[in-house]
Amino acid sequence: MNGAESLLRSLTASGVEVCFGNPGTSEMHFVAALDAVEGMRPILGLFEGVVTGAADGYARMAGKPAATLLHLGPGLANGLANLHNARRASSPVVNIVGDHASTHARFEAPLTSDIKGFARPVSHWIHSSTSALTVGADAARAVQASMEGAGQIATLILPADTAWSPADDVADALPTPSLATVSDATIEHIAALARSGVRTAFLLRGKALQTRGLEAAGRIATKTGARLLCDTFAPRLQRGAGRVQVERLPYFAEQVVEFLAGTELLVLVGSQPPVSFFGYPDKPSWLTPEGSRIAVLAHPHEDGTAALEALVQALGAQQSVARVTTRATQDYVPDGALNGEAIMRSVAKHLPEHAIIAEEASLAMGYYGLAEGAAPHDLLTLTGGAIGSMMPVSIGAGIACPDRKVVNLQGDGSAMYTVQALWTQARENIDVVTVIYANRSYKILANELKRVGARTDGAHAASMFDLHNPSLDWVSLAQGMGVEAMRVETARDFDAVFAQAMKRRGPMLIEALI
Amino acid sequence: MNGAESLLRSLTASGVEVCFGNPGTSEMHFVAALDAVEGMRPILGLFEGVVTGAADGYARMAGKPAATLLHLGPGLANGLANLHNARRASSPVVNIVGDHASTHARFEAPLTSDIKGFARPVSHWIHSSTSALTVGADAARAVQASMEGAGQIATLILPADTAWSPADDVADALPTPSLATVSDATIEHIAALARSGVRTAFLLRGKALQTRGLEAAGRIATKTGARLLCDTFAPRLQRGAGRVQVERLPYFAEQVVEFLAGTELLVLVGSQPPVSFFGYPDKPSWLTPEGSRIAVLAHPHEDGTAALEALVQALGAQQSVARVTTRATQDYVPDGALNGEAIMRSVAKHLPEHAIIAEEASLAMGYYGLAEGAAPHDLLTLTGGAIGSMMPVSIGAGIACPDRKVVNLQGDGSAMYTVQALWTQARENIDVVTVIYANRSYKILANELKRVGARTDGAHAASMFDLHNPSLDWVSLAQGMGVEAMRVETARDFDAVFAQAMKRRGPMLIEALI
Repeated sequence: MNGAESLLRSLTASGVEVCFGNPGTSEMHFVAALDAVEGMRPILGLFEGVVTGAADGYARMAGKPAATLLHLGPGLANGLANLHNARRASSPVVNIVGDHASTHARFEAPLTSDIKGFARPVSHWIHSSTSALTVGADAARAVQASMEGAGQIATLILPADTAWSPADDVADALPTPSLATVSDATIEHIAALARSGVRTAFLLRGKALQTRGLEAAGRIATKTGARLLCDTFAPRLQRGAGRVQVERLPYFAEQVVEFLAGTELLVLVGSQPPVSFFGYPDKPSWLTPEGSRIAVLAHPHEDGTAALEALVQALGAQQSVARVTTRATQDYVPDGALNGEAIMRSVAKHLPEHAIIAEEASLAMGYYGLAEGAAPHDLLTLTGGAIGSMMPVSIGAGIACPDRKVVNLQGDGSAMYTVQALWTQARENIDVVTVIYANRSYKILANELKRVGARTDGAHAASMFDLHNPSLDWVSLAQGMGVEAMRVETARDFDAVFAQAMKRRGPMLIEALI
Repeated sequence: MNGAESLLRSLTASGVEVCFGNPGTSEMHFVAALDAVEGMRPILGLFEGVVTGAADGYARMAGKPAATLLHLGPGLANGLANLHNARRASSPVVNIVGDHASTHARFEAPLTSDIKGFARPVSHWIHSSTSALTVGADAARAVQASMEGAGQIATLILPADTAWSPADDVADALPTPSLATVSDATIEHIAALARSGVRTAFLLRGKALQTRGLEAAGRIATKTGARLLCDTFAPRLQRGAGRVQVERLPYFAEQVVEFLAGTELLVLVGSQPPVSFFGYPDKPSWLTPEGSRIAVLAHPHEDGTAALEALVQALGAQQSVARVTTRATQDYVPDGALNGEAIMRSVAKHLPEHAIIAEEASLAMGYYGLAEGAAPHDLLTLTGGAIGSMMPVSIGAGIACPDRKVVNLQGDGSAMYTVQALWTQARENIDVVTVIYANRSYKILANELKRVGARTDGAHAASMFDLHNPSLDWVSLAQGMGVEAMRVETARDFDAVFAQAMKRRGPMLIEALI
């Protein structure tokens, strides 16, 4: 057994089943070991942003890490933006980054770089293996580190000689860290505040946005009249028919201020106080209403679900009935122009049970409410603002949940950042339907230009937002990577094509001209 | 005038004429200023790796920096791999990276990240502007810093409020740094060594590989019998008919050892001693023959061209005639299968005068010798080993030299990393012909697997190199981004299509099935 095989066996012993990779020469022994070791599924991405984004999507749905396999500093660098998103999603990810052999490091070869330096801004845990004899233990620790708190980015750097040198040990899994328990005193404190009659809103994030947490939050809301909120960009939210309804914070600062007006107590459950996405010259960054109180029921590293359930007890809300949404999207009749509303109404109507929506289109975000009455589903959003996230996330979600349909609502500008994801979707036959909102512009920037108070109507500025000249042909792009694709231009055509797409399996792309 | 305008005016005052960008909300004032300021050409890339790679290509051909415009940490992160290549090419680049407004920084918004941390591994100089009143001066210093030594990466971070706040100053250009002068003592020392009769090789890099330096090196070679060498991956080399011939170091360690056998003195001119690209279990990393002497005529920050000219004087080689290559590619008659040799013979035959070859295909590298007798041209190569470099470099080279044809010899695997470059090629009507070497595999990795001593013939490992299933359709991909494309399968068809491509203008892609 060599170090690579020891590493791989230790990863699988720790429960890692999938490796998204884009290897190079320095990772060849790891690649060879994939055939010697049972239980690790390798999935190739043609660009590292696909690899890391897929690991993010996998983690959000599987609740445990996939491994990534990346080639030296530049390979890691290409994956950093989606690791930034994964970090903001609290997704557990284990990066394996190949490095030059320790004997080669001092020669400053062309690919030599500061790998730890690249890793540091996105990683909670970084280690470079020093011997083939320890890589197994290093792997077990990396997996454990990735599961600390709500989920972390663990980066294990693997010099090539630690992969090719002899090893004899496979490390057992280390204990999976648990979320910390919220103290009784905190529960009592929040219960007292919630009983005081002040206008209260619970801002939920993390596992608290899944069924059990929502169920408890729903009882609390019924008992106390509190609002239930989630961030604009929650990593994962379970919603739809039969689920407790959660209001989503709007995107723009002034909308959030209006949305939160009157709130006297904001209770954080795994979340942070809401702030503006960007700073603007004349708009607030801090969005909690002035004079309102902030209380922490659960920090992100604490068990917010259990805390909500304890709060149900403390409030005597066990018999309160959580209000859930009902199915209410079936009577939509498509007509007229294709736009963000028409797309969302068709999606909500035809979405199958337990589908996964991966959202990266501002026009989809704007019609959040329309999917409330859809069949029960999971919503994944762009947590870190680094566009190019959701096409890869769709891959990971599809690998984690092969029996669930993935619907990727995707802006055309952002889709281009990791367009290579389509190839992996085809190769792995991911059951994902990608809807491209083809407005052929960085539409949000044209708006933001005005919002930040910049004044111009010149051609140079406009050219930085406009994606015409040439127009992207998404049908050609998808077909070039082996994904079946269609272009639609009316609400009726979109509805028919989308309905059909929900009934078949495998990757497909719909270019929606809006 | 606001800070953004002050910055932009100061950049143009310092001679920066082109801004490759992919902006976001935090850069909107900079974008607006593009219309208020004359003399800055903005060029949009749909992914930041395109932006930074284009800046690298521009710098290699223009000899001065372009600006990049990048959106916060993740935008910079997406551009890091090609900044790594630019750094290895000693290309001057001025990155402008937007940041959150200083008033917004403390709120840990989703896009907040450690921008300096991202920048550090690739940047020689980093500064974050503290006031709109100093951004002009900061810009002038960034340009100057980028021109230090042989060329550097300067990263200027621009908090949004330093862009939108009032400013009143435009900074004058700072003096452009000169390369340091090599001392007379060093010249005399090298001359004495070169006269001693030992078998000598000059390893040239940087400006020494352009006409003047080559001319001098050619006289020295004639006078002393020394060999003239360049690195496997020289940033820029002028070659072809009428130019002094330079031998290129081969790629693999054992080939280099054989190539350098018998060398008793290695004279470095802006270069480092040759080392293996990767480390291997049983192969050397250090490739200078044992017992041979290494002497530095010029460090990278010194003027190697002037040093070579001084050495001509010291050796009394003024009357020596530099041997130059002659045109010898015209009689090629294409026939049979399409392969790396056939492609290079057609390229060499039809290449117009003063074309620029951007090389990122190992099969092109292997036929370096066949282009020796082509019309005079510049060769640009993948300096840092981070694939995804040359499609963007072709953009920058085409912008810097609009009257010269660019030929991009491109592997299919590496092309996918920055495939979005094709869109910018179409929008800007870059005169570039991209030849995709479509072997539908990471061919070099299948070879490297054996070379590193890994043993496997399993399906998992093979799946990490194989780009079939699905096969990439480069004609569809190119057309999807507005670039005309053709697929060819025989040497004769390739020759005909390539010959035709050399006679027209504008972007085109040829998918060469090999």
